[in-house]
Amino acid sequence: MAGSSFGTIFRVTTWGESHGPALGAVVDGCPSGLPLSSEDFIAMMSRRRPGSSIMSTARSEADLVEILSGTFEGMTTGTPIMLLIKNTDHHSADYTEIADKYRPGHADFGFDVKYGIRDYRGGGRSSGRETAARCAAGVIAEKVLESAGISFVTEVESIGGIPYEESEDFIRHLRSEGDSCGSVVLCTVKGVPAGIGDPVFEKLDANLAKAVVSIGAVKSVDIGLGHQAAESRGSMFNDAFVSTGNGITTGTNNAGGILGGISTGNDIVIRAYFKPTPSISLHQETVRSDGTACGIDIRGRHDPVIGKRAAAVVESMAACTILDSMLINMSARLSSFRSFYGNK
Amino acid sequence: MAGSSFGTIFRVTTWGESHGPALGAVVDGCPSGLPLSSEDFIAMMSRRRPGSSIMSTARSEADLVEILSGTFEGMTTGTPIMLLIKNTDHHSADYTEIADKYRPGHADFGFDVKYGIRDYRGGGRSSGRETAARCAAGVIAEKVLESAGISFVTEVESIGGIPYEESEDFIRHLRSEGDSCGSVVLCTVKGVPAGIGDPVFEKLDANLAKAVVSIGAVKSVDIGLGHQAAESRGSMFNDAFVSTGNGITTGTNNAGGILGGISTGNDIVIRAYFKPTPSISLHQETVRSDGTACGIDIRGRHDPVIGKRAAAVVESMAACTILDSMLINMSARLSSFRSFYGNK
Amino acid sequence: MAGSSFGTIFRVTTWGESHGPALGAVVDGCPSGLPLSSEDFIAMMSRRRPGSSIMSTARSEADLVEILSGTFEGMTTGTPIMLLIKNTDHHSADYTEIADKYRPGHADFGFDVKYGIRDYRGGGRSSGRETAARCAAGVIAEKVLESAGISFVTEVESIGGIPYEESEDFIRHLRSEGDSCGSVVLCTVKGVPAGIGDPVFEKLDANLAKAVVSIGAVKSVDIGLGHQAAESRGSMFNDAFVSTGNGITTGTNNAGGILGGISTGNDIVIRAYFKPTPSISLHQETVRSDGTACGIDIRGRHDPVIGKRAAAVVESMAACTILDSMLINMSARLSSFRSFYGNK
Amino acid sequence: MAGSSFGTIFRVTTWGESHGPALGAVVDGCPSGLPLSSEDFIAMMSRRRPGSSIMSTARSEADLVEILSGTFEGMTTGTPIMLLIKNTDHHSADYTEIADKYRPGHADFGFDVKYGIRDYRGGGRSSGRETAARCAAGVIAEKVLESAGISFVTEVESIGGIPYEESEDFIRHLRSEGDSCGSVVLCTVKGVPAGIGDPVFEKLDANLAKAVVSIGAVKSVDIGLGHQAAESRGSMFNDAFVSTGNGITTGTNNAGGILGGISTGNDIVIRAYFKPTPSISLHQETVRSDGTACGIDIRGRHDPVIGKRAAAVVESMAACTILDSMLINMSARLSSFRSFYGNK
Repeated sequence: MAGSSFGTIFRVTTWGESHGPALGAVVDGCPSGLPLSSEDFIAMMSRRRPGSSIMSTARSEADLVEILSGTFEGMTTGTPIMLLIKNTDHHSADYTEIADKYRPGHADFGFDVKYGIRDYRGGGRSSGRETAARCAAGVIAEKVLESAGISFVTEVESIGGIPYEESEDFIRHLRSEGDSCGSVVLCTVKGVPAGIGDPVFEKLDANLAKAVVSIGAVKSVDIGLGHQAAESRGSMFNDAFVSTGNGITTGTNNAGGILGGISTGNDIVIRAYFKPTPSISLHQETVRSDGTACGIDIRGRHDPVIGKRAAAVVESMAACTILDSMLINMSARLSSFRSFYGNK
Repeated sequence: MAGSSFGTIFRVTTWGESHGPALGAVVDGCPSGLPLSSEDFIAMMSRRRPGSSIMSTARSEADLVEILSGTFEGMTTGTPIMLLIKNTDHHSADYTEIADKYRPGHADFGFDVKYGIRDYRGGGRSSGRETAARCAAGVIAEKVLESAGISFVTEVESIGGIPYEESEDFIRHLRSEGDSCGSVVLCTVKGVPAGIGDPVFEKLDANLAKAVVSIGAVKSVDIGLGHQAAESRGSMFNDAFVSTGNGITTGTNNAGGILGGISTGNDIVIRAYFKPTPSISLHQETVRSDGTACGIDIRGRHDPVIGKRAAAVVESMAACTILDSMLINMSARLSSFRSFYGNK
Repeated sequence: MAGSSFGTIFRVTTWGESHGPALGAVVDGCPSGLPLSSEDFIAMMSRRRPGSSIMSTARSEADLVEILSGTFEGMTTGTPIMLLIKNTDHHSADYTEIADKYRPGHADFGFDVKYGIRDYRGGGRSSGRETAARCAAGVIAEKVLESAGISFVTEVESIGGIPYEESEDFIRHLRSEGDSCGSVVLCTVKGVPAGIGDPVFEKLDANLAKAVVSIGAVKSVDIGLGHQAAESRGSMFNDAFVSTGNGITTGTNNAGGILGGISTGNDIVIRAYFKPTPSISLHQETVRSDGTACGIDIRGRHDPVIGKRAAAVVESMAACTILDSMLINMSARLSSFRSFYGNK
Repeated sequence: MAGSSFGTIFRVTTWGESHGPALGAVVDGCPSGLPLSSEDFIAMMSRRRPGSSIMSTARSEADLVEILSGTFEGMTTGTPIMLLIKNTDHHSADYTEIADKYRPGHADFGFDVKYGIRDYRGGGRSSGRETAARCAAGVIAEKVLESAGISFVTEVESIGGIPYEESEDFIRHLRSEGDSCGSVVLCTVKGVPAGIGDPVFEKLDANLAKAVVSIGAVKSVDIGLGHQAAESRGSMFNDAFVSTGNGITTGTNNAGGILGGISTGNDIVIRAYFKPTPSISLHQETVRSDGTACGIDIRGRHDPVIGKRAAAVVESMAACTILDSMLINMSARLSSFRSFYGNK
């Protein structure tokens, strides 16, 4: 089915495989009047790019984002923005050995069962490279949000259970062993006004959860204190409301800025839990597509930890989600409708 | 916006407030030919009903589900099924003190900011009572899934960090103190075939995450090992594929039955982390809608722990999500299309 | 599939069969703060009601609309509004003869092929009675639009090719013969501001066309001069733009108020072409569900012309479509976003 | 809003302006296993291409369709198919005079009011050139449908009220006068099985109406006898059901193959009524964006009649609509679900 679109008003549709000529995103529903050029994408794309840290592979694609539509004289026009990223550094030869073996931890088997055909070169559509298109879309979302004073702080919190800043030796060790490990990304969104999100199925946190878990290697997502909430008591967990210079919000923020699916005006706090990179150099057991058992040795360049590069993806997905919710929210009240269209 | 619908082919639309005359769900897109009667709902509704365990309030609504449309001679016809549940036991008088105070941990403040108006009687639309409609829909989803050999095991795993079976004294203690605590619900889905789910934004786990986090008090969701994956190594976390009598699947199941958004044929394992019930009897600090500080004493009957009743809701949301994904999946291959419509 | 919902932000989900206990609509996404009570529905429902003119049947249901959710103290709250209409006047006994015969001009055969089961009592879900729910939803849409100065004039233009005001004798004649005929409904919407609608697939006229053709008996829809445009020349058809006291619009209105899918500020002009009521008293040839040929004599009360009652339905569908488009349009520009959320 | 997508399971998202570097479509949800290459697009693209008949302009773009994703070794994989068409023959210089004048019959004014910015070069997003992307998508839909024995016959029926085959002199005359005229396109779809479409808002004819009216210059759409149905009598219009060697269908086909929104198995008959090409060489009156009156002389190459090229677009939109409906229909019955997933 058509599963490559995300969002209602601000809708991102990604396309492309890791080893085709290009991949990208169509960003439809972006408000008109936003200054936008290829340069805007450079910072985000280099945060996500391989080779940008000790954690990541040496694969070094420039990941320049070309804007093929949707802008005129440097401004968005409200029409779909086509963002194209060329694949310049792929080596199909690396993947022949895995054409009929199912790599543990990957979607290979699922694709074969579902579709009966699979682009085995580097994961094809399920490659982490698809997230480059999400980051390109996220740049646009963040630019719109920035105009309303909203900003993001996203960082790797821990690597294999070790605080990020203490984990460098551990990563070198993993790499030398040919192994990988999981990580936690913490994304804090500042400046989201109270009142964003919808009460039932379209809760802001529900959509953030979907957004974050739709990133390939994520196995869990927390809002605020997240899974620790299950061990807490109401008398300690409840955040008291207080009045501030900017109006009402909560004093503490155990809820992570969202109550009942609607933002409280406090920081929105999201944690994404990434599993270990499934591609490891160590020998593994698996089966071939005909069901016969075999060993598998995955070659190629793979990050021992996905967190550092994935931080850009988590942030991008959060930005797209929050922007969509804010655009939707503009029509929540009759008084807004009347004031927009003239009170007659 | 229209935020009360869930699903694409099998779509559930809930409606109703806790203190109106009734609430319910429209289940649209249910396959035709399913036997369905009011009796089918009794077991699930009593799992969710208040007063069904030591953990829950004494409020005892029968929660009979009336079928107003969509069946003929006891079978679903493919047209929308309207499920109506009357509200028979509400006491509006309990809620006057909180009409202009924002209850900590509740959506009151968000509703007021978003809509400028709020049904303060028992939470209105954001009341946990809305989940009765989800459970009614879940019954239908489970009946369809059952016809393909899919079953659910859902249980409370822990209460405030204590294993469920050891927590009875703790709950009595909480209740006597007027406090509440969080809980963990574990839902295991057995028999889902491999190949269900879509590769990118409509990943099966992404939709399950949205489904589960859309339940009011959930602050985190795990798929498989979930947040523990972030502390694990690839060599240990990766599940090796194996051949079984039923075809290929994974030997271990750290992934929780989903890889790259697509089911592996192994059990689907979901954990929902519930925050402590926000309504506690203890005195709390908050503000009025005009921003002035005040204390608040919440009266009424409230569960000290939400887990036991919420298990039915988690299961229902999982059932709706998986069924929708399975219905969508039927058209994934050209060979299925040709075989359905005749190979000409 | 879930085919009973219409709209994106303002979404109407109808449910119910002609011969079940009730039918209705869930209106989700209505802006909060709209005064609404059961009385608001009376005028529209009586326009649609059987027996309201010489053209229609004697079936006389009161069609009272009960509001089961979504309002508080007489105002909409932004949550889903459940509208329930009881079926009080059905005679299942009328329909036994047609249980296994396919009525010409009806959906009976299609339902059987698609679903393998069919509620044959009065058409079930495909009965014209389903449109009562659309009219109830339309009342709400019109009330919101009215607050922005938008109004509707809807009338039957012709009956069987004869101007409406000259057709009374013709209808009496049809009725005496047991025959039926087609009709044209003209709906004019005044006051829609320029700029409403989207450029490509979500054109305002495309959505109006879907809305109108989704009414059972409609076989054609015109926007502005409609099908006559195909016989016209550009030099005559093009509407020159002019400046008026209210800003720019077109001087003439051959386009019917929409160009390129976006409103021009001129009246929106829609014509719906209804086929003859398929249920006629005359003997007809058809087949049984097993394929054997047979004659069929349809008893019961049926309108010889559907136009008069259907006018309310056309207007209601137009109102829902235009309102949804106007709500969506509020987030089209970055400047609106910034002004709504504060220019920081 | 995100208005550039069409379809639920088979979803087409178009992007691009007439004078940007390229335009195209993302086709998401195409079943896997369909052979597809660039050559498949040549025939359809040349039917739509300018210069392909006496009716059209001399602009001669090759309109080669490049496949950037979604296929592997010449077969679709189920992932989004990115179709890119370069714009090779645009002359921006032609459009400077119209930068601040609103062309009669065009969307210029609507775009300015809605978005506050507009790509005035050749209509930008509202240019007829956008339909090239629809035709590319239509090729894929037709290939899938062809595998189930479904075929299309699409032709221009009349030009300015004159039968197509008699209109050549008239067109020459129009061209010499610098004028344009409307046309009627007739699209007949053969082989669609009975049972396709949904009963209420997602009626097959409702979606076809939306699909066809979403083509820029269409002002009316007929299903079957269409607007003539309004002048007809039930005794003549109703199509009697008959048994044939292929099962039950209707003997006559006044309904155009659809009853109550569901296909009857007979030919689906659609007529699209196109207004005269709005760009004419004759001098016209209009206003500038500041509201001052002015004359306008539109230069450039424009078709005097849009029908011939538009036939390919009507057919493509019909194909996308019918395919989507057929994919959705595969999950309508519980028996199909059980048979697909194994009857356990």
